[in-house]
Amino acid sequence: MTAETLAASFDLPCAERAAIPRAESDSREAVAKRWRLLGSGPRQRDALADERSLAELERFERNIENFIGTVKVPLGIAGPLRVRGTSAQGDYYLPLATTEAALVASYSRGAQLITAAGGCAAAVLAEGVSRAPGFTFGTLAQAAQFASWVEGQAEVLACAAAATTAHGRMTGVRATVEGNHVYVNLEFATGEAAGQNMATLAAAAVVRYIARHSPVRHRSCFLEANHSGDKKASALSLARVRGKRVSAEVILPRALVAGRLHTSPERMTEYWRMAALGGVLSGSIGVQGHFANGLAALYIACGQDAACVAESAVGVTRLELAEGGDLYACVTLPNVIVGAVGGGTGLPSQQACLEILRRGGRADARALAELCAALSLAGELSLIGALCSGDFARAHAARARGEELARLEVHGA
Amino acid sequence: MTAETLAASFDLPCAERAAIPRAESDSREAVAKRWRLLGSGPRQRDALADERSLAELERFERNIENFIGTVKVPLGIAGPLRVRGTSAQGDYYLPLATTEAALVASYSRGAQLITAAGGCAAAVLAEGVSRAPGFTFGTLAQAAQFASWVEGQAEVLACAAAATTAHGRMTGVRATVEGNHVYVNLEFATGEAAGQNMATLAAAAVVRYIARHSPVRHRSCFLEANHSGDKKASALSLARVRGKRVSAEVILPRALVAGRLHTSPERMTEYWRMAALGGVLSGSIGVQGHFANGLAALYIACGQDAACVAESAVGVTRLELAEGGDLYACVTLPNVIVGAVGGGTGLPSQQACLEILRRGGRADARALAELCAALSLAGELSLIGALCSGDFARAHAARARGEELARLEVHGA
Amino acid sequence: MTAETLAASFDLPCAERAAIPRAESDSREAVAKRWRLLGSGPRQRDALADERSLAELERFERNIENFIGTVKVPLGIAGPLRVRGTSAQGDYYLPLATTEAALVASYSRGAQLITAAGGCAAAVLAEGVSRAPGFTFGTLAQAAQFASWVEGQAEVLACAAAATTAHGRMTGVRATVEGNHVYVNLEFATGEAAGQNMATLAAAAVVRYIARHSPVRHRSCFLEANHSGDKKASALSLARVRGKRVSAEVILPRALVAGRLHTSPERMTEYWRMAALGGVLSGSIGVQGHFANGLAALYIACGQDAACVAESAVGVTRLELAEGGDLYACVTLPNVIVGAVGGGTGLPSQQACLEILRRGGRADARALAELCAALSLAGELSLIGALCSGDFARAHAARARGEELARLEVHGA
Amino acid sequence: MTAETLAASFDLPCAERAAIPRAESDSREAVAKRWRLLGSGPRQRDALADERSLAELERFERNIENFIGTVKVPLGIAGPLRVRGTSAQGDYYLPLATTEAALVASYSRGAQLITAAGGCAAAVLAEGVSRAPGFTFGTLAQAAQFASWVEGQAEVLACAAAATTAHGRMTGVRATVEGNHVYVNLEFATGEAAGQNMATLAAAAVVRYIARHSPVRHRSCFLEANHSGDKKASALSLARVRGKRVSAEVILPRALVAGRLHTSPERMTEYWRMAALGGVLSGSIGVQGHFANGLAALYIACGQDAACVAESAVGVTRLELAEGGDLYACVTLPNVIVGAVGGGTGLPSQQACLEILRRGGRADARALAELCAALSLAGELSLIGALCSGDFARAHAARARGEELARLEVHGA
Repeated sequence: MTAETLAASFDLPCAERAAIPRAESDSREAVAKRWRLLGSGPRQRDALADERSLAELERFERNIENFIGTVKVPLGIAGPLRVRGTSAQGDYYLPLATTEAALVASYSRGAQLITAAGGCAAAVLAEGVSRAPGFTFGTLAQAAQFASWVEGQAEVLACAAAATTAHGRMTGVRATVEGNHVYVNLEFATGEAAGQNMATLAAAAVVRYIARHSPVRHRSCFLEANHSGDKKASALSLARVRGKRVSAEVILPRALVAGRLHTSPERMTEYWRMAALGGVLSGSIGVQGHFANGLAALYIACGQDAACVAESAVGVTRLELAEGGDLYACVTLPNVIVGAVGGGTGLPSQQACLEILRRGGRADARALAELCAALSLAGELSLIGALCSGDFARAHAARARGEELARLEVHGA
Repeated sequence: MTAETLAASFDLPCAERAAIPRAESDSREAVAKRWRLLGSGPRQRDALADERSLAELERFERNIENFIGTVKVPLGIAGPLRVRGTSAQGDYYLPLATTEAALVASYSRGAQLITAAGGCAAAVLAEGVSRAPGFTFGTLAQAAQFASWVEGQAEVLACAAAATTAHGRMTGVRATVEGNHVYVNLEFATGEAAGQNMATLAAAAVVRYIARHSPVRHRSCFLEANHSGDKKASALSLARVRGKRVSAEVILPRALVAGRLHTSPERMTEYWRMAALGGVLSGSIGVQGHFANGLAALYIACGQDAACVAESAVGVTRLELAEGGDLYACVTLPNVIVGAVGGGTGLPSQQACLEILRRGGRADARALAELCAALSLAGELSLIGALCSGDFARAHAARARGEELARLEVHGA
Repeated sequence: MTAETLAASFDLPCAERAAIPRAESDSREAVAKRWRLLGSGPRQRDALADERSLAELERFERNIENFIGTVKVPLGIAGPLRVRGTSAQGDYYLPLATTEAALVASYSRGAQLITAAGGCAAAVLAEGVSRAPGFTFGTLAQAAQFASWVEGQAEVLACAAAATTAHGRMTGVRATVEGNHVYVNLEFATGEAAGQNMATLAAAAVVRYIARHSPVRHRSCFLEANHSGDKKASALSLARVRGKRVSAEVILPRALVAGRLHTSPERMTEYWRMAALGGVLSGSIGVQGHFANGLAALYIACGQDAACVAESAVGVTRLELAEGGDLYACVTLPNVIVGAVGGGTGLPSQQACLEILRRGGRADARALAELCAALSLAGELSLIGALCSGDFARAHAARARGEELARLEVHGA
Repeated sequence: MTAETLAASFDLPCAERAAIPRAESDSREAVAKRWRLLGSGPRQRDALADERSLAELERFERNIENFIGTVKVPLGIAGPLRVRGTSAQGDYYLPLATTEAALVASYSRGAQLITAAGGCAAAVLAEGVSRAPGFTFGTLAQAAQFASWVEGQAEVLACAAAATTAHGRMTGVRATVEGNHVYVNLEFATGEAAGQNMATLAAAAVVRYIARHSPVRHRSCFLEANHSGDKKASALSLARVRGKRVSAEVILPRALVAGRLHTSPERMTEYWRMAALGGVLSGSIGVQGHFANGLAALYIACGQDAACVAESAVGVTRLELAEGGDLYACVTLPNVIVGAVGGGTGLPSQQACLEILRRGGRADARALAELCAALSLAGELSLIGALCSGDFARAHAARARGEELARLEVHGA
């Protein structure tokens, strides 16, 4: 396209369409009205607004607005994955919802590999969801004075927060001064919930308290000033925690590496060195391969907030040669945002996925976080194995030809 | 938990469970067998492996392994969103699949606001999917010689790549030397597909060509050495492009800001300054509010790779006071990974969502990218408006009490 | 150069030269021996090993090894700079050692501008020098147990540290687990010294204590595991503090901006928006213009560690339109590493530079940090003013023609 | 300090001091006048404005304004360092100016170690200094049109640039669109000069050309919009190049590691793994130990721009076990800013330092860059060796007791 065409193209007229009418409460009639608005044909309508989805209308109402149906995401299972965590303990099958071929096969291969090695250890290392209200002042002096004051109010602020929630608890407050601006990072323990909304409501109460009691008059105040890492990869969250910070590790006997991954611990550690610096040179936050693949699939299946993949798919993978020529591998994910209640966990199919997990062992919030780490470890091992043995390219070629994928047990990066 | 308990907890025994049997081709029997393995009850099975999903078994087969059913993600519509893009032109309703309350309402509010202002401009600024094979050598001298050679082979490497795909095209090669290691970034144009697999297959052909013709013998070679930004936020992809680089902008008359967002352009730009530096101080890649929310919901609805949210939800939002006191707002997303074909785009409900988009105007790959930018712009405006007017906290409070959300038109950050 | 020449060039032979002999204590004879080794002519020797430098030989002995003379760095003064800090208070002339033309003129212009506006506020917001010993363990369980233990030992570790220093104090300990590795960040208050060595010695004592008392046996232990931000820009130090975190701000009346910078607050804030996002898009840590210029010149002049410019020249500059059309400007530097004692502060010319500062007001460690912030603010205002008025290019052109630079009062970026 | 005291302290009055008078050309009288202004005593004056410095007044005039004397930075030599570079070839002694004890000893140890191993390979991999003018437009459409146009004007822009310099050459242009803003990155080859000023002047000419010929009217234009990485660590410059991108490598026989570093290749690679991830977890740009130490000392000695340490002290160090149990080590520095002419290279003592380098072999701009890499490699090996053997702590302890440091051969991190 030439520059002239480009410029012209911004000026084309476009047709008007009606705003979606607001509904007092959702109903089949409201849904039908929306479909008329969309103007789509019966085939589309049938694919989304099937009878089953309409029948469960009221179960979706608190999770969505302007409801028109449900999207059906194919679900596969990976496993069993043996986890020896501080919360998650057992042999788990993991429900993964994805449209990307080879993903489930690859994670399943990694999971079985870990299980064959006796399982992986896993531990939640830290917890906390943050909100970062921002306050602006007339001067740096006022900002510094406010920051000093607010950091001394942890206890009373925690009380203000406590009034909004029975399950959450404010655990810390930290102020960052930038000229006449102050970011106030509030940390919350959120129990069994992922807790982003709990944190927001509690933060609002804290802000109200501050506004009433601060010895320094602020000019403006915002409930969230983008200093909490919410919904995005950030170095700050990598250094601290957002949600749950969790690690998992395994030692793979070299015979297993040879037998199942068709490569050697030496080659896998050589790959790791190159890939770790590849991440560094590309300016990623942390260094890892594809945490996002497994996390997105597990989050969608289990009613977690899929947008949190943006912050959760951050961390560090490390491989090294263990004594006796075995392979040591570990992953650390500082920002896993998962809950056993709230969000989409109560919806019919998502609840069923959580129940599948529970058949393997505990699946409370901390256990879910450990499963995320264990799953990520499985994915990294399978991917790196494929890249080291050459299976990676073969799997994609097979897929392009429409060959049977389950046999290949590899993944679609 | 004390340190001792922590240590002890790693040593608990756990039960054994069977590996998922491989299936030559998927069938109701294979699915039934998997369910027996899981041991879940009829309620779970019914929620996931409903008759409809089983009936469409063969349509899912190329998108998933170890299939056991489908997860139903609630779908709402936002809009209309008027886009005056170089590809996307029209008034679009956007299908958003999410379990997070208030998300659809908030994006819908932003979309209608943009539409009321006459729509947003949008443009794809650059395109390209990368793969970064890695080669190791004995010495820096060999690495430097290889890098110099490989950058001169762009044409023949493009030929090698061309043999693997009718739709993609290799458009560039760039070598990065680190000691005796070389990362070779290959860039591909991938037509209407998101193109990650196309790029992988083409890269494999390029690597085979290199292995045969390189004047310098490499020691090891890996198809992907983690220098492509695949599935993760990276500064490199922010600086270049991964998928499609796209910008969208709008000017909101101040009356609209007052009438619909209950705040002023001045306050919104004040917020932007604080939030932009909040992002900087937290070490995020780019500075934006919550691109991830809308992108995840649109990706899931439209059969895109949800894991790519990890890389796509990166970019820059900018607000400033326009002449006459109006509000200028723009977003730039360098790594939008979308396709009109391939991935999950052919599945029944995902196809229906794409068709909803097409009712509004073009929805090819470039148009999809522009819609992603326009949607992100809508989300940022609604979120920032809510944070500036105080609606943000009120919306979450309402939500906590189970109040009607459509009226609040806010979002679930 | 062709790839072949490149490869060949690595194989050229090169002559042998003698190792520098070790000296028990430094003396004119030892220096003379070193010069014979170098084989340089009398002109070089005279330029470096002048009589004055040799006469002060013993004063340099504790700051350098293999002494052969002194490098003479030209010194200019900038100011007066009025600072209204919590420690630095007064009208200061700042000694700046640099070989870059226009630098002193530009900072001096900025300083006088601030002074004409009544001076800048400045405040040290946080203090602390960190060392980050690293411990490796057999398993994640051991690592987690150790991390939990060590964070509980803050008091006894502080005692161990106290045995090594009368002036420093350990103020915090924080453990970061990554698989079976643990980084232990120790924070120290270092009084009037910059404190990097004080922190190292204290950390060594802490590590010895840990080695003796830890309930978990580590495999390896390193005194510094590269998690402290020492001598490098890092997002972690931006989020916390290394050395001193300090902010400075000023309001410039618009008449001053017009009269002295030949531009307007509106244009300067427009520039700031573009430059802030320029920094974001280039993936810098923080967003600022050229803190490094003034800091390097002041560090060299005042006997500070010039290598610390790598970590100190990080932070945030913000400009915005103040009420009444004036210009608000502030800078925040989280990692200023300065001391009033130790390092090069006792050397003759460096001591003289510190004395020049003291004529203006306090110049203890905290005051020095505030002067760094005030100087950085002066530099940013002068640079941005020059970029907005077009003086920047004119100054460089003048310089290229050898014209008088003091008149131009601009800087060499 | 309480918050109240803090607030009060900003309001203290401070004395007025006179502005530094401008001088048409520098003279002893002008210097004397400045000293009267400073009010310092004869001892300070003598330490800085010694007879020798005053006698060479006119040689400093083009490098400094408001001259009051020279700062004497102690100078030591490290080496010999055998370099087998594409430009630098020979056994070099390196002049290092620093006030940090143990630094020269440590780098000298590393240099001799490399020499004993037969020298290090080194190669300049890419070159280019960038300037990034910024243009603002009314709309995204105009910005996109402009970006498309300007990238097509490489040849004529290079001509415009050529008019300003006989030694430099514009080698590339790249436009980055962000909404209605465009950053135009111009790349220059700058011959034997570091070239920052050459690039600025050439960029000014390019901007004038653009302003006259652009088919799209810009609103504002700035000569540098902070997208060039000038004087700061940035991920963009890590990915590309600023100044010179250079790598150096060496293989150390394990006997040398044992004999001179008192440790083993295994322990050093174990350290590297932990330190590399330490850097990653702290959010540094690249991963390395202390490039800044050697670079700052060499830059000051050789008349380079010490402020550029902020951008030059970025890169990657890698250690791995080589065949036969030896140690492979390499460093890569993407942003070395050095010149053989211009800046401070013509000043008496700085010229003498460059001459010391030239005694060892070539010392043109590319050779200087390779020496920077080789020196950095020496420093990393000595530091890591010290951290692995425990010498690091011992050296600092010795220093604290005032012991002889040359014997310890360690460094001052």
